Amino acid sequence: MLKLYWAPNTCALASHIALEEAGADFTLQRVDFRADEQRQSAYLAINPKGRVPALATDRGTLTETPAILAFVAQSFPKARLAPFEDPFAFAKVQAFNSYLCSTVHVAHAHRVRGYRWADDPAALKEMQRKVPQAVGECFGLIEHSMLAGPWVMGAAFTICDPYLFTLAQWLAGDGVDIARFPQVAEHSRRMSERPAVIKAIGAELG
Amino acid sequence: MLKLYWAPNTCALASHIALEEAGADFTLQRVDFRADEQRQSAYLAINPKGRVPALATDRGTLTETPAILAFVAQSFPKARLAPFEDPFAFAKVQAFNSYLCSTVHVAHAHRVRGYRWADDPAALKEMQRKVPQAVGECFGLIEHSMLAGPWVMGAAFTICDPYLFTLAQWLAGDGVDIARFPQVAEHSRRMSERPAVIKAIGAELG
Repeated sequence: MLKLYWAPNTCALASHIALEEAGADFTLQRVDFRADEQRQSAYLAINPKGRVPALATDRGTLTETPAILAFVAQSFPKARLAPFEDPFAFAKVQAFNSYLCSTVHVAHAHRVRGYRWADDPAALKEMQRKVPQAVGECFGLIEHSMLAGPWVMGAAFTICDPYLFTLAQWLAGDGVDIARFPQVAEHSRRMSERPAVIKAIGAELG
Repeated sequence: MLKLYWAPNTCALASHIALEEAGADFTLQRVDFRADEQRQSAYLAINPKGRVPALATDRGTLTETPAILAFVAQSFPKARLAPFEDPFAFAKVQAFNSYLCSTVHVAHAHRVRGYRWADDPAALKEMQRKVPQAVGECFGLIEHSMLAGPWVMGAAFTICDPYLFTLAQWLAGDGVDIARFPQVAEHSRRMSERPAVIKAIGAELG
């Protein structure tokens, strides 16, 4: 049985949606960030990075959204969530998700997790000031160079879609108007109608 | 024919080593960062992100180190650089590489590419000040929780190894003594003896 460790308003939503899209049998375990549970020994024994998501499997725990997404896709091949049989097409999927984790999510993280890279309050404030620009540039690139439409990779829905949808939810909080990116906005709208997305968001709110 | 776009002292070295390990037929194309070639239209047509590495293939260009590494491994299966047949083992490989790109490389990047997240000179300086701590914490986690030894994943050499080797080269410049991490240091030493690594570094030094 799979168990997904998650917290509200985190990128764990992407893995959650993918598990629903895959038709996987899984349970949810909320990690209480307000109580700093992610930094306590019980959780660090599960994920020494002190972050979510983490996916407990019968062979051990997996971390990092791109890895969890690929694992879900490969473990539930009938859902056809990634083109494993085609190295180039699979690499395009991985490249998109890698950009989200290493550049887009990082640009966003400078708003509330700047302490990872600086301590001085003035520096943290300066990082926050630049978040709308940095995040906006990322989504400009996605809009114009990366989102094929209707889904990220084109006609086929893949593990890129729940991940983009998840990070796009953060735009308003980051001070970026999603209307600047009509394709991204339409993608989010289309995603929000999928039963798996409705179910995952319902479970997180519930 | 594959063509790798690279620049000295960048993470492109990881893809370069992997291509050598795979026995791939490829050419190298240096991108001149000193002349800001990566931001000029000719290169942006190849990689709109304005970064290296980029791998030109007969089907199009791939970016993002974890994606290029997985593509090389999957395209040259005889080199056995990743356990594609085992979704859990492959996800462990992907998780390690995802951590390197989204957390370790990012911690390092605050030393010389802080302009991505702030403009104020004092903030850039404050980011630089914290780099040894942030990078050191990453390598502490790698040393104690992630590097199985002798290779990252254990007995089998994988696409994690050239990537770790590449980022470990940056420790001295980041003000972190690699001797604090004996397993990482030994891994780097062992890597530096491999013919593929010697050949790749030789080619970059030119």
